[in-house]
Amino acid sequence: MEYKFSDKVSGLQASAIREILKFTSDPDVISFAAGNPAPEAFPKEQIAEISAELLRDDPILALQYNVTEGYTPLRDFLKNWLKDKNCFHPEFDDLIITSGGQQANELSCKVLLNEGDTLICESPCFIGSLNAFRSYNVNLVGVEMDEDGINLEKLENAVKTQPNVKILYLIPNFQNPTGRTMSLEKRKAVYELACRYDFIILEDDPYGELRFSGENIPSIKSLDTEGRVIYSSTFSKLISSGFRTGFVSAPAPIIQKIVVCKQVSDVHSNIWAQVVSYRFMSTVDKEAHFNSLRAIYKKKSDLMCSYIDNEFSKKISYVRPEGGLFVWCTLPDNCNMNDFCKKAIQEYKIAVVPGNSFSIDENETSHSFRLNYSTPTDEQIKKGMETLSRMTREILD
Amino acid sequence: MEYKFSDKVSGLQASAIREILKFTSDPDVISFAAGNPAPEAFPKEQIAEISAELLRDDPILALQYNVTEGYTPLRDFLKNWLKDKNCFHPEFDDLIITSGGQQANELSCKVLLNEGDTLICESPCFIGSLNAFRSYNVNLVGVEMDEDGINLEKLENAVKTQPNVKILYLIPNFQNPTGRTMSLEKRKAVYELACRYDFIILEDDPYGELRFSGENIPSIKSLDTEGRVIYSSTFSKLISSGFRTGFVSAPAPIIQKIVVCKQVSDVHSNIWAQVVSYRFMSTVDKEAHFNSLRAIYKKKSDLMCSYIDNEFSKKISYVRPEGGLFVWCTLPDNCNMNDFCKKAIQEYKIAVVPGNSFSIDENETSHSFRLNYSTPTDEQIKKGMETLSRMTREILD
Repeated sequence: MEYKFSDKVSGLQASAIREILKFTSDPDVISFAAGNPAPEAFPKEQIAEISAELLRDDPILALQYNVTEGYTPLRDFLKNWLKDKNCFHPEFDDLIITSGGQQANELSCKVLLNEGDTLICESPCFIGSLNAFRSYNVNLVGVEMDEDGINLEKLENAVKTQPNVKILYLIPNFQNPTGRTMSLEKRKAVYELACRYDFIILEDDPYGELRFSGENIPSIKSLDTEGRVIYSSTFSKLISSGFRTGFVSAPAPIIQKIVVCKQVSDVHSNIWAQVVSYRFMSTVDKEAHFNSLRAIYKKKSDLMCSYIDNEFSKKISYVRPEGGLFVWCTLPDNCNMNDFCKKAIQEYKIAVVPGNSFSIDENETSHSFRLNYSTPTDEQIKKGMETLSRMTREILD
Repeated sequence: MEYKFSDKVSGLQASAIREILKFTSDPDVISFAAGNPAPEAFPKEQIAEISAELLRDDPILALQYNVTEGYTPLRDFLKNWLKDKNCFHPEFDDLIITSGGQQANELSCKVLLNEGDTLICESPCFIGSLNAFRSYNVNLVGVEMDEDGINLEKLENAVKTQPNVKILYLIPNFQNPTGRTMSLEKRKAVYELACRYDFIILEDDPYGELRFSGENIPSIKSLDTEGRVIYSSTFSKLISSGFRTGFVSAPAPIIQKIVVCKQVSDVHSNIWAQVVSYRFMSTVDKEAHFNSLRAIYKKKSDLMCSYIDNEFSKKISYVRPEGGLFVWCTLPDNCNMNDFCKKAIQEYKIAVVPGNSFSIDENETSHSFRLNYSTPTDEQIKKGMETLSRMTREILD
């Protein structure tokens, strides 16, 4: 029979990165295309211990249905922790556990936007979020970024000219894919715009704790006095990605709607992972744990950037990350980025992600590509970056 | 600030059962309102063992990101298992792991229906599914049931008169809430209607393996020659509800779209639970395990039904279940069901679910209420059913 799909999803494609990752099953390919945490960043011994104790002493808690809002002790822990970081305002916020950070984006969009309403985001932007928004057939508008985050003039222009602007989606810390961090000044200006033009800010912060250089910058949520910021984060990069345990702090009426939508989406998130996350976070020395993660990523980032600094063709510019997982490289204008990326995988066996994968319109011209340093081993970084460096010199110099 | 929600969700309420369950935190209340598996039905020792081995020998598999489609060995196992049950047709079907059976319903609806398109279901119907469909603003049409399942004449009439009928949603085995099972004859007739009028059947089968009396009836999926049946099931009642591990067997083009939508919803389901489920299902004596579950639920069902048979007012009729978790009781016409249920919780401290919670239109008159025997202990069933029996006699006789 012939299948007719809904208008929402009929044009939706699997992430372009998935297509690239298919090449990476070739054992000769070194991949800088993924975005997985470093395996050594997972506290595996502690998780095994906590899990064994849980399944021995309290198995039914880990195996039975639980409430949609999430495991109560974990929620209480997160409320306090986020309150200390000014990301939870007890006067008006509530909190829900989600199935990863991804679900926070998807449900925020479902709860707030009708088809055709406008959602503004940074361009380029995280592809998983773009596709979540696309799956609700919203008017997706990308606004260019400066070095310190989204361009304010262009943002205000979009807000003024686009229909029903409801959400501005931002990754202020170590943005995926650009690695850029939004300045405090810009965060304040963006929040003021939200108040002036009455829209919601969806602040996605999966990498905030992974700052390995520079100074922490207050979240946009910390500036929120009117209850117009949805703040989401996840344990994917802090404990385990496979857990699928994220969380959202937002004004109570929004959380209430997200709860109803989550209930019909998956009832609740895997409860074993929620309990293990709670017991880990509430017993571990958090700063020591985060410091060990920061050290892992700093070392890998430094290693990768040392090749860009010393071995790459000087015609390539890049954003040196202060945290997170990615390096954003830009080719000179006369170099075709798509050809470059194709050649990298086919001839040099190096997988990188073409910049236009992160564009709102994939046909847009991009001169950039994304490198990831968290997934490959140090050996793979060395070998792969040596090859990629040689390639940049052969092609550009 | 004033929050404006999307049209899809602005009218959406949390499940009415949740409201009832709030009363059940009162330790004096005996609840027959839930739908949790019996705690003794979870194979907790085996899960603890498998988990310990997994986290010791292969921790990164359990903690790292995985693919959206689900853990490959589990998918392969399920394809074979469902093929043996004629619920997977290798010629045209594919399979995806979902976050519980709930996600299968939600994503099927998202993938196939535009706002205003029609989804037909049995009335009464599982409230979680109803709310999932409501959350996409579809035209939800309930069709009355006979003893052997949905009324065919009324179904055909709905198909002919409603706009854009895309999906017929059914729980053919031990339906929630009525406990009714659809006859083979009716399954065939329903499938023929689907072919004649070109719609998709969404066959939800969470309880199929929990048949403790009578004969198995082939699934509608087993009759599918044209590729128009989406079959979904879950490990929630077979291994653990907290896992949130379900699965969908459906024509490959539909699975492909569900994969894209699941990717933007939660990337993938908790991978630890998928690996543990795979190792459990592929090593355990499945029939022995299912037989032990059937024995648990037969005993509980028999216990509850013995009170209805012997102690209830004779003015109450009921559907004796051959499997699943629920008993559907019907009051005489002159008795107000909502008053009855309110009195049960407030005066007699017994929680049951009012039948209209499962109606497409909650203002519809219903004379039925749902009892659950899987969650309470045998002692609670005895004590609660004694009280409820007394109440029925006091009120009705």
